Amino acid sequence: MALIVQKFGGTSVGDADRIRAVADHVARTRRAGNDVVVVVSAMGKSTDNLLRLANDVSTVMPPRELDMLLTTGERISMSLLCMALADLGVAAASFTGSQAGIITDTDHTKAKILEIRPDRLRKAIDDGFVPVVAGFQGMSTDHEITTLGRGGSDVTAVALAAGLKADVCEIYTDVTGVFTADPRVVPEAHRIPRVSFDEMSEMAATGGRVLMLRSVEFARNHGVPLHVRSSFTWEPGTWIVEEDETMEQAIVSAVTHDTSEAKVTVSGVPDRPGVAARLFRALAEEGVNVDMIVQNTSEDGSTDISFTVPQGDLATSEATVENLKEALGFAGVTSDPSIGRVSIVGAGMKTHPGVTATMFETLASNDINIEMISTSPILISCIINQDHVEPAVQLLHAAFELSK
Amino acid sequence: MALIVQKFGGTSVGDADRIRAVADHVARTRRAGNDVVVVVSAMGKSTDNLLRLANDVSTVMPPRELDMLLTTGERISMSLLCMALADLGVAAASFTGSQAGIITDTDHTKAKILEIRPDRLRKAIDDGFVPVVAGFQGMSTDHEITTLGRGGSDVTAVALAAGLKADVCEIYTDVTGVFTADPRVVPEAHRIPRVSFDEMSEMAATGGRVLMLRSVEFARNHGVPLHVRSSFTWEPGTWIVEEDETMEQAIVSAVTHDTSEAKVTVSGVPDRPGVAARLFRALAEEGVNVDMIVQNTSEDGSTDISFTVPQGDLATSEATVENLKEALGFAGVTSDPSIGRVSIVGAGMKTHPGVTATMFETLASNDINIEMISTSPILISCIINQDHVEPAVQLLHAAFELSK
Repeated sequence: MALIVQKFGGTSVGDADRIRAVADHVARTRRAGNDVVVVVSAMGKSTDNLLRLANDVSTVMPPRELDMLLTTGERISMSLLCMALADLGVAAASFTGSQAGIITDTDHTKAKILEIRPDRLRKAIDDGFVPVVAGFQGMSTDHEITTLGRGGSDVTAVALAAGLKADVCEIYTDVTGVFTADPRVVPEAHRIPRVSFDEMSEMAATGGRVLMLRSVEFARNHGVPLHVRSSFTWEPGTWIVEEDETMEQAIVSAVTHDTSEAKVTVSGVPDRPGVAARLFRALAEEGVNVDMIVQNTSEDGSTDISFTVPQGDLATSEATVENLKEALGFAGVTSDPSIGRVSIVGAGMKTHPGVTATMFETLASNDINIEMISTSPILISCIINQDHVEPAVQLLHAAFELSK
Repeated sequence: MALIVQKFGGTSVGDADRIRAVADHVARTRRAGNDVVVVVSAMGKSTDNLLRLANDVSTVMPPRELDMLLTTGERISMSLLCMALADLGVAAASFTGSQAGIITDTDHTKAKILEIRPDRLRKAIDDGFVPVVAGFQGMSTDHEITTLGRGGSDVTAVALAAGLKADVCEIYTDVTGVFTADPRVVPEAHRIPRVSFDEMSEMAATGGRVLMLRSVEFARNHGVPLHVRSSFTWEPGTWIVEEDETMEQAIVSAVTHDTSEAKVTVSGVPDRPGVAARLFRALAEEGVNVDMIVQNTSEDGSTDISFTVPQGDLATSEATVENLKEALGFAGVTSDPSIGRVSIVGAGMKTHPGVTATMFETLASNDINIEMISTSPILISCIINQDHVEPAVQLLHAAFELSK
């Protein structure tokens, strides 16, 4: 008998029919002899509807009140799911984030989980109930209702699985798992049955849309096996697990891409200690989330520094850097919003040195110019022109024989 | 500087425009130098919509989950009102029933308030905030979310006013106050500026729709002055206060009516101790809420007992009484669902003995037969044929010169 945490996203509980389908699946899992803890998101578009109401009422949205408002969405879906489970003869009980013992910091609208106190859930499980927990929310150390920000319901599920030492955390969504590339770009892309936490982290960080980096890192840190699967087909999906050294690893597991960033280049930067530190400290203080940074080696005493930022932060970034021109003595700032990132991810790269060359050759032989390069032991990312991103993903998917 | 509790019902916060109008009124009250605590109901039809969703999902509605579901409605309106107040520069903070310290018993869907722990609200007031509290809900002694049943938001407001020792509890609704009769029946009916708790209790108990008996009794027991007024016109409404012995009292303040009950008559009941007790104990055990009871004096050793019950309880009542026929030895049971009650209420009756005669004469001279009579020091109620109720209300309103 296993303890399974099952998390259902907004489309999975989007209407009454969907909620009854989810209840049926939970009931089957329970009757197969497992203990189940369910985590739900708000129904379909309900969060958008609440935000629209808030916009109609006020131009100001105090974060505490926004959290109070938005947390009602998950409460509605969890109580409805409990009723649907009762209809199937399954004893269930709903728990708010606070009741489930999800303790967060006081940072409204993007709180971080500090601690899980699962006593009440544990007792409900021991008493034969299926606890149904509101995702995305917790209670702060000030006893206020908080929300966990984007991807928060997945984090709730992973954190509860860790706190309850569950055997697996199943993330139900509207796709059947993690794919070798975005199927909208590469029709031959196929579901990957099994990836390591390391690979999944790199994929999430470089444009994979199925899981947010935050949940993957949480699961990795607490050793919670994840199983991403579809609540529409219910078929087995992708397992995300500790790397298994006994298995032969795919050299390249997936091609990911991302077109949401822009590039800033600072040219003629004096090559002396502390210059880069002041630059990126200033950007951090403006709340700019710098992603990739590349600095060329210099020979004439000056260097170029390029970095990428979310497109929405581009104007702030340019102004911030421009302000430092005199103090740091660099020559100029240029930017390019029309870039994209294409990446290959694979645990097997560590032991196969030819991968980088193959990637560069594939791009070069198709006249795709590489503007920036960044690597980790299991990742190679290239910044290229945005127009080249889709062909590049298709070419790399073919070059590494991922359609097989 | 006064401390004012302002309660807004569902139509008062029915849409974004209404919420902004309420925020404007709260802001004015605040800027006039008062401390304000607001209690809100769920927006307009939102409770009905949640119930419809529940019906679509399940045939079973566990009371705990129903409470969890329905309490989201007030949470949405309270956080939206706080945002609208923030937009007007008024510092406000929302509080769930639990956060507001409303402690109830464990009777889900119709919990009773056991205690108010207003520390958190008191601190918010002292810190310069307008607390906005979710009506209709509390937290049980088992730490579960409960609802207070029908009229629950009024009870929340009165209970908080009592707990905070507020100067007045203002109940905002869609009518301008308490009237001398239902204006749909008596077009000349007019708003009563001031009634005593005793009169208001009798009016609420005999068909007045503005306030439920439960809230009036709570306010009377804790000496909380009530002010019932309109959130559409904002004009002064009706004050419900302790009887003021120095003022001359109206003989009759209002005519009320109610057509929701049915009459049961048990005939030929042996006139010996304990018979009535067994009859009404049996009905109580079936959950029947018996209202008026009249027993005629007997001369031949048997008597007739008539009583009224809600029309929905009529079938149960008849069956319950019928079951006791042999044990109690009465002759038979008859019932009449087509009755109505017309009542006159007035504190001045206590000192004006002619009122009863005037009432009976008014009905008799218009050929309206009285089937049952019940009196209290400030109330006379007659059960008559349902078809006679509207004319009776009009005749009595004129006879006691309430249109003046």
